[in-house]
Amino acid sequence: MKTPLHIVKIGGALIDDPALLEAFLVAFTQLRPPAILVHGGGKEATKLSKKLGIETKMIDGRRITDGATLEVAVMVYAGLINKKIVAMLQAMGINALGLSGADGNIILAHKRPVKDIDYGFVGDMEAVNTVGLHKFIQAGYTPVFAPLTHDGMGQMLNTNADTIASTLASAMAGIFDVSLSYCFEHKGVLKSMTSPEESSYPVLRNSDMVRLQGEGRIHSGMIPKIHNALQASKLGATNVFICGIENLACKTDATKIVWNETTA
Amino acid sequence: MKTPLHIVKIGGALIDDPALLEAFLVAFTQLRPPAILVHGGGKEATKLSKKLGIETKMIDGRRITDGATLEVAVMVYAGLINKKIVAMLQAMGINALGLSGADGNIILAHKRPVKDIDYGFVGDMEAVNTVGLHKFIQAGYTPVFAPLTHDGMGQMLNTNADTIASTLASAMAGIFDVSLSYCFEHKGVLKSMTSPEESSYPVLRNSDMVRLQGEGRIHSGMIPKIHNALQASKLGATNVFICGIENLACKTDATKIVWNETTA
Repeated sequence: MKTPLHIVKIGGALIDDPALLEAFLVAFTQLRPPAILVHGGGKEATKLSKKLGIETKMIDGRRITDGATLEVAVMVYAGLINKKIVAMLQAMGINALGLSGADGNIILAHKRPVKDIDYGFVGDMEAVNTVGLHKFIQAGYTPVFAPLTHDGMGQMLNTNADTIASTLASAMAGIFDVSLSYCFEHKGVLKSMTSPEESSYPVLRNSDMVRLQGEGRIHSGMIPKIHNALQASKLGATNVFICGIENLACKTDATKIVWNETTA
Repeated sequence: MKTPLHIVKIGGALIDDPALLEAFLVAFTQLRPPAILVHGGGKEATKLSKKLGIETKMIDGRRITDGATLEVAVMVYAGLINKKIVAMLQAMGINALGLSGADGNIILAHKRPVKDIDYGFVGDMEAVNTVGLHKFIQAGYTPVFAPLTHDGMGQMLNTNADTIASTLASAMAGIFDVSLSYCFEHKGVLKSMTSPEESSYPVLRNSDMVRLQGEGRIHSGMIPKIHNALQASKLGATNVFICGIENLACKTDATKIVWNETTA
């Protein structure tokens, strides 16, 4: 039997609000180790870009990472947010180790190929150094990943945190019994955003997605998140959940994400 | 016999100039491993503070690290500079691992006590986790330290890179045969700044310092640097040098810094 490994991803709202971040980290420390944390960027990078007069470049509604935007991402993600989380976890008795994909060459990526759009310094993941990451875990560290990778030729790249979490989960599934949790501001994927007192979906399968998207029940940012979660389930993660802070450990009312091969 | 360990510190001019940084990193990769790199901040933090309208606070000519200044330091040192160096070293085949003192709890510090001046979020080093650092080295990593520490209670602290290099050198001297190099824009400590064609001091001892400072031959920023170098020599580093990029390996014309107990 493989050893359990928790991989938890947090994003936006939980990072931007200091009280929520602390509540999350307390919940995170109560998971049985080993664990890996992957954090997104939150609004700090946008705020810093604005202060510096760097315009957000968009092409066809897609965000472009130019050189100046990448510098801000590296400063905010690998600097400000990563070290804040690492220092807070250390204070809670967790031996956190902040990492970008370049550190220890843990995540190699390549600049996204230009088809219709040049996304700039955006990295698509190519390889996870599972041996290196496993050794950090064996040595008792809790890796804390900033959403940044490198191309092995000296270039840092901006990489989606949901995708990093999903790819780490499937890569580490060869060694560990992986539980992946996408932790956000709700208990799970809500059946209705307009009446949040309504319960969340207990399970979502890939076979549900076309219908739910068609009905407009799942839309915008939730679609790529669920897609990343489904990928992890498909590629070996034992359990994949979308959950909140309060049910991170127990998973009550969380949405379990299941790849269902037969109905695909 | 202990295994040799190179600890190299680079600062200002070498970090700010991309060509010099690359030349330095090429020289650094040619040192026989294992090695540790400690980098300073360069002018990027000052530049970013200026852009953000954060004033440099000074009391009695001493720089104060307030909350906003610390955030900039964390972003620039642990983010921008650290990840640039790590990605470049990875491209050169060195398995670099970027660290602040908080990562892996490698350097614990405390906020400098307030006597006449409150320096703000400035950390005085308290303990080096030599076991953890040794394990990173044994695993084949080249640690790359940003000049930041933490207090173990969740607070990041700004810490002088020269002091970090000196303290790491003396702490690791119990395990390794440590060579510490302060690498800067000259071959060594020049006998005269106004006629740099004149040679550098081959050796400087603590017993020389009072006279040389009195004669005004060594002044301003060189005084604390040599003090840090002398401390490392006193506390166990086998060799301590102040040198340039071109003589980092051979140490020709470098200044050897020697603590001489009998004449102290």
